[in-house]
Amino acid sequence: MLILLTNDDGIFAPGLIAMYRELTRMGEVHVVAPETVQSATGHGVTLYTPLLTNQVRVEDTFTGTAVGGRPADCVKLAVAKILPKAPDLVVSGINSGANVGINVIYSGTVAAAIEAAFLGLPSVAVSLYLRAEVPTDYARSATLALEVIEDALDRGLNGGECISVNLPALRPGQSPAGVRIVRQCVRPWTDTYEQRIDPRGRTYYWNNSVFTLGETESDTDVAALRDGYVTITPLQFDLTKYEMLERWGRGGSNKARRHEGT
Amino acid sequence: MLILLTNDDGIFAPGLIAMYRELTRMGEVHVVAPETVQSATGHGVTLYTPLLTNQVRVEDTFTGTAVGGRPADCVKLAVAKILPKAPDLVVSGINSGANVGINVIYSGTVAAAIEAAFLGLPSVAVSLYLRAEVPTDYARSATLALEVIEDALDRGLNGGECISVNLPALRPGQSPAGVRIVRQCVRPWTDTYEQRIDPRGRTYYWNNSVFTLGETESDTDVAALRDGYVTITPLQFDLTKYEMLERWGRGGSNKARRHEGT
Repeated sequence: MLILLTNDDGIFAPGLIAMYRELTRMGEVHVVAPETVQSATGHGVTLYTPLLTNQVRVEDTFTGTAVGGRPADCVKLAVAKILPKAPDLVVSGINSGANVGINVIYSGTVAAAIEAAFLGLPSVAVSLYLRAEVPTDYARSATLALEVIEDALDRGLNGGECISVNLPALRPGQSPAGVRIVRQCVRPWTDTYEQRIDPRGRTYYWNNSVFTLGETESDTDVAALRDGYVTITPLQFDLTKYEMLERWGRGGSNKARRHEGT
Repeated sequence: MLILLTNDDGIFAPGLIAMYRELTRMGEVHVVAPETVQSATGHGVTLYTPLLTNQVRVEDTFTGTAVGGRPADCVKLAVAKILPKAPDLVVSGINSGANVGINVIYSGTVAAAIEAAFLGLPSVAVSLYLRAEVPTDYARSATLALEVIEDALDRGLNGGECISVNLPALRPGQSPAGVRIVRQCVRPWTDTYEQRIDPRGRTYYWNNSVFTLGETESDTDVAALRDGYVTITPLQFDLTKYEMLERWGRGGSNKARRHEGT
């Protein structure tokens, strides 16, 4: 089994290294990941500047390709040029921080997995919820992630399908409450910005929003992660809002009819 | 009516200026847009660096706020801090280039509109298909876009709803074939990269993919735009793949049952 591993925290991130170690139990793992941290880059891609690459040795664990680009670039480039053949599975992560709720939209970790899916590959994004009061254990998280990935493959994760997995923050010895298959919470966060003035009189703003797993419907990723579950959310890349397409009259419009009538 | 206008080509882009001129017929237009070109940035946001802002006068037409950030940042910041109250409508564009098919995922123009939608506002992304052999007429495109926007508001574009409008490349005197309400084509482009070696021996890659409006199903945005229609695609920000959620068993999983049983 040929596995492509990427992330958005950069090729030296501890979450990626831990995930690499576990994935080698399943097959041959190729790492193609951003050279630098690319958090909250969303589904950006690099079309107008060159993508610089470097072969790097990481913690005596693997040699991978560091790409001077975004997570989605890594997947595109790996599939088009770097890997010997199309991978059987693409894994993105483990991200340092949860990717649930509306953050799914901003996440580079998720973008890499979605890119893989629309290239026709099965893919998994893995993110770890960090809590200040709980020590971060990437090795244990990666073991848990591997169980979830193996379970997903048994269940049938097809080419073109993508799941986003979020792992709870677990204290030593604590088990997850279970695994839940849940929808994305679409409630917006409340954005807050702090306004400041620079020494030359220009106004600038810091985003100081605090994202917490707060109140939400019980069947969402946010609720399940908050309650200590491992969450699995199947993701799509067809952004069409079909309910509205039907409501507005798929195919035509008043305007179109007006044009066609004249 | 209070309208927020943004884009991803930057505050000095001719498409934005033309759109501004038309939108002033509908209400009071505030421009908060990136300082520089932000094409293909996807739904990235700026959380870890400050957002610098500048008041700029553009072509003696308007004074707007230039933001050293991404399209989605502009919407967040405008709504949270810059506008006197929540806008009644958010418009993003006119983008120089079509945003149909899988490019919807990469588009900063679309990301700005989607950001507005999940903040609960009605929003419209407007993009213009450019063809080398057809002269670009932003003024005429903006007039056409305004008709489509007014039509959409008549039809009922609610808070939290987002449409992506693509305008065909029209020769002088040529009319669009009509207006079609269509789904997003989800066929992948074929990525190609050209490999080069820099003077110091490092490998780098240029993405040299050529995106054309090629073969696709007849009910998609790609097909309709190719055939000279104005296209309208309603977009969503819930990325949950519900079909797969049901297939995998919403709420639980084998794994969860295993955990719960022990």
